[in-house]
Amino acid sequence: MKEKTVQEIWEAIKNGQWRKPTAGLAPAYTQANVVILPQKNAFDFLLFCYRNEKPCPVVDVSDPGQVSLPLAGPEADIRYHVPRYRVYRQGELVEEVDNIAALYTDDMVTFLLGCSFTFEEALLDAGIPVRHIELGRNVPMYITNIQTNPAGIFSGPMVVSMRPMPADLAKKAAAITAPFRKAHGAPVHVGDPSAIGIKDIHQVDFGDPPVINPGEVPVFWACGVTPQMALKAAKPELVITHSPGHMFISTITGEDLRKW
Amino acid sequence: MKEKTVQEIWEAIKNGQWRKPTAGLAPAYTQANVVILPQKNAFDFLLFCYRNEKPCPVVDVSDPGQVSLPLAGPEADIRYHVPRYRVYRQGELVEEVDNIAALYTDDMVTFLLGCSFTFEEALLDAGIPVRHIELGRNVPMYITNIQTNPAGIFSGPMVVSMRPMPADLAKKAAAITAPFRKAHGAPVHVGDPSAIGIKDIHQVDFGDPPVINPGEVPVFWACGVTPQMALKAAKPELVITHSPGHMFISTITGEDLRKW
Repeated sequence: MKEKTVQEIWEAIKNGQWRKPTAGLAPAYTQANVVILPQKNAFDFLLFCYRNEKPCPVVDVSDPGQVSLPLAGPEADIRYHVPRYRVYRQGELVEEVDNIAALYTDDMVTFLLGCSFTFEEALLDAGIPVRHIELGRNVPMYITNIQTNPAGIFSGPMVVSMRPMPADLAKKAAAITAPFRKAHGAPVHVGDPSAIGIKDIHQVDFGDPPVINPGEVPVFWACGVTPQMALKAAKPELVITHSPGHMFISTITGEDLRKW
Repeated sequence: MKEKTVQEIWEAIKNGQWRKPTAGLAPAYTQANVVILPQKNAFDFLLFCYRNEKPCPVVDVSDPGQVSLPLAGPEADIRYHVPRYRVYRQGELVEEVDNIAALYTDDMVTFLLGCSFTFEEALLDAGIPVRHIELGRNVPMYITNIQTNPAGIFSGPMVVSMRPMPADLAKKAAAITAPFRKAHGAPVHVGDPSAIGIKDIHQVDFGDPPVINPGEVPVFWACGVTPQMALKAAKPELVITHSPGHMFISTITGEDLRKW
């Protein structure tokens, strides 16, 4: 799959030939988190994202009922081009499906939110090792005491992901990720976990526990689980998301996204 | 008025002691364009702004019915703190009023959009002269052939403002304004006006004609008249804006806005 174009990957997904996580597919292109909501909740959610750009970086938004994404996939069909979807009703997961043709009415709005894959790629390119990738694990994630700026029905704490590294690399990593404001941007915190309400760095809220070597500092970035928690708490009538790891592959390159 | 705090200026406006343009008031603080719309048009407009950040840089948005602005004026009352308002119905100007207490229902959403005052201040601080300010005129503005990215009921051409300067200063001006992404950012075009559909640089669409000295190049920035044109064309049931020049004075400093 690695040498296929984005369009070919979309086609393979639609035809049922790819129902797996998308990490590593079409590496030049950015992947995005998917949130699909009825129009009546769309203003609140767009405003929530606008007020909380670091955890909720909006890469693209469809018009109501539009199945393509004007900037991130003008030829995409969001009803078929994600390998697996989760359907939530009143905040509860009710099913996992392969396409959402039956659910995507004229009333539904698609949001694409930037993803840390993009900046991790940039870190690796700059020779900064990313521990959880080296170990083949999921990134450690924590609920913090930083509150998001609420908007309408959406609110809640900021969730962060953590990557440990020596202090000099942490500085470099901050500079590399800062321009990626559509992929969580610069770290929200470096160092003492208790400063952001994390009591025990080894006790993760999501993902796998960290491995921190002597002399390393924890570096915390805003995380895309933040809007997921806000969505769960708000309990809208209907929400459709990608299944974890089964992202939408956009036609925007990482290099392009850095300039947004 | 110049030494008064933002809160004192708001109070003076509310009490009818200031019904004039706001240029020069509270110079450390940013001023903003005001657009107030019914909730049913708010998603389309926020999306239009999101898709057209350069002409429509959103500085803050209220919740429906909220009279304060969470980031730009937590203690403001948008019903009273603008010196003069314009009320449009179905795209037609129907009245100019001193407050909007009778119109601002629980259904109304306030948008604050960044303003070129902010980056002109930064240019002047860097020793780059701004011609129309030197001459005490309004900035020249042009309708271009650059189309905005439409969203719902909103669409139309990009309007630009123009400031002439020697080529070396144009480069410097671009670098100075680029970080102000909440105040139109870097120029959208430098040089040949016909490249963006302007046939005669001396024939302005808005503002005063330019004075261009030998050896100077025209430098074009995206302009806040763009959303005004889109609003006029979309003809929503009700739109309230500030009257030209009678801006909302926010509690965000220019220096803070540069970092957004």
